[in-house]
Amino acid sequence: MSKRKLETCFSPVLYESDLHAGSVIVVIDILRASSAICTAFANGAEKIIPVAEVEEARDYKTRGFLVAAERDGYVLDFADFGNSPFNFTPERVSGKTIVYSTTNGTGIIKMASSAGKIIIGSFLNISAITEWVVQQERDVLLFCAGWKNRFNLEDTICAGAIAERLMKSELYSTICDSTHAAMDLWGLAAADLPVYIEKVAQRSRLRSKGLDDCISFCLTFDITDKIPVFENGILVSDKP
Amino acid sequence: MSKRKLETCFSPVLYESDLHAGSVIVVIDILRASSAICTAFANGAEKIIPVAEVEEARDYKTRGFLVAAERDGYVLDFADFGNSPFNFTPERVSGKTIVYSTTNGTGIIKMASSAGKIIIGSFLNISAITEWVVQQERDVLLFCAGWKNRFNLEDTICAGAIAERLMKSELYSTICDSTHAAMDLWGLAAADLPVYIEKVAQRSRLRSKGLDDCISFCLTFDITDKIPVFENGILVSDKP
Repeated sequence: MSKRKLETCFSPVLYESDLHAGSVIVVIDILRASSAICTAFANGAEKIIPVAEVEEARDYKTRGFLVAAERDGYVLDFADFGNSPFNFTPERVSGKTIVYSTTNGTGIIKMASSAGKIIIGSFLNISAITEWVVQQERDVLLFCAGWKNRFNLEDTICAGAIAERLMKSELYSTICDSTHAAMDLWGLAAADLPVYIEKVAQRSRLRSKGLDDCISFCLTFDITDKIPVFENGILVSDKP
Repeated sequence: MSKRKLETCFSPVLYESDLHAGSVIVVIDILRASSAICTAFANGAEKIIPVAEVEEARDYKTRGFLVAAERDGYVLDFADFGNSPFNFTPERVSGKTIVYSTTNGTGIIKMASSAGKIIIGSFLNISAITEWVVQQERDVLLFCAGWKNRFNLEDTICAGAIAERLMKSELYSTICDSTHAAMDLWGLAAADLPVYIEKVAQRSRLRSKGLDDCISFCLTFDITDKIPVFENGILVSDKP
């Protein structure tokens, strides 16, 4: 039986949409969009509507929706809250539909939406998504959000951690240099993740804005078994 | 004294030209364009004229120039030879001007030509280029050619090896995740480069075309102290 393909993309500008029709795409933006989305579902959110444009988010707000929206780490003035996972408390989000606009993550979900299935991955749901992905019997793309179209280390090591688990299943093969690099970097980072993350540029950016309080939380494994799945334009929660 | 910036770019599609005005750009395409160019100068070539388009190369050939040209690893029918470093023998190239068109490398040289200075780097001239770069007192971009706009491991580890040497000079600083990743991957690869290179996709591609005979040569350190420098549209040889 031929193995399923496993590939990794380090930035939206490296994404080649025609290669991934029918694949599962795992969108990874751990500091902070994908961690925030996983936390929202862990805390009982019912649906998340990702929107790319600020004006679209503002329009939803005027129609009474709960809106999470930020640009470059700052909460937009009309929004209920921003992009920190700590904002998505059970009190605020349980049973709710949230409209969510972020710098990076939302655009990538839209970009990849011609693929077979899109889910949101982070360390917070890594075991659950790995199990879910294996059940899909499809090729897989690990799609790192990066930062302003650049390569970033934090999404890469998370992709490497997911790739390592998928490769251990022996159901996948890869001839993708990005996947090998991600697994190798994860191998270096895994021994002491909080120390490794110190050199990451986004660590410094968040610190300079006083937004780094959530980083150790975003590096926590398996706080939830929820799988945010993109269906018909919205994110809903699945389980392995 | 503020340190010089050190950055790394993993693919032409990740290149942001407005960030690198005045920088030294080291173009790295070790399998095989940058290794071939370094070998040509090591063997006495006087000038190399890089051309991006096949038709331009063909035109030079009709005007009597020595032409090296390939696409996807195959020699073009009108060319004198292709892209293997082994083609650039002293008998063929000593004292000559070579017109050189490759899949990747040539286009990148043109793309980066608005920067301050462009040189060609490989393992074959790594000590010489490091010394030369340090003398320039400029910011540095290590520009990996990649493969068909994708990330590749072989150029990344070479960039990592150069970055490690530059950082040891204590004249540079970096907050570039790509540079950190390249140095970390080089740290893994350095212990046994021929074994590490086995997983590289380009290794398999070259092998399938019978073009992998030059790989161990391309991983050799310091066969030359020549620095291919791009000046007024052509590559000429400098020394540290």
